[in-house]
Amino acid sequence: VDPQEANWSPTEQEIAKQAFDAAYERDLLTLTRTLQSRSSAIATAEDIWNLHDFLSAKRHEFDGRYDFRYPSLLFVFAELIKTNLLQISELKGLAEEKLAKISALTRI
Amino acid sequence: VDPQEANWSPTEQEIAKQAFDAAYERDLLTLTRTLQSRSSAIATAEDIWNLHDFLSAKRHEFDGRYDFRYPSLLFVFAELIKTNLLQISELKGLAEEKLAKISALTRI
Repeated sequence: VDPQEANWSPTEQEIAKQAFDAAYERDLLTLTRTLQSRSSAIATAEDIWNLHDFLSAKRHEFDGRYDFRYPSLLFVFAELIKTNLLQISELKGLAEEKLAKISALTRI
Repeated sequence: VDPQEANWSPTEQEIAKQAFDAAYERDLLTLTRTLQSRSSAIATAEDIWNLHDFLSAKRHEFDGRYDFRYPSLLFVFAELIKTNLLQISELKGLAEEKLAKISALTRI
């Protein structure tokens, strides 16, 4: 067991995984709908290349955002809360200390 | 007038522009429909990133393919014919020498 992971009890790990997955699914659903709506409205070549630029940015954003490693997780959750992909209430059950750190990070 | 352009009579320039634009519009229409159909079938994140890769490749392809400069034009038309975006008959009216060169290039 890596020492960072040891900081998270099995219950906490489960809560974290569920919250993480829920945020990811929401993000993906929004992206899918945006793609579908932008695709159906394509009228010019410019619209296509703008959509490509948008997807490039989103891919970069997803790559940076969804990093399920215990050392990063408090930052990840803070970011997901700031971007409205997660409610702090979905993390109920994590140690108070972790919740306090996440809350503090959302205010930065 | 640049010396390469001087090789193309005004009528040839007009024929070339029309054929070029027609191929471009066909290509764009196909791309738009593919995008719409792939977007509407998105089921997983992988589908989205594959679509992004596909768009990156298409953008690169378009950038290379649609180069309306007289020195490149014979190559451009040969490529458009090879990829079924243009019929040689749409270039009727160009000098025989140009048509022969384009035909030869399509067989390379």
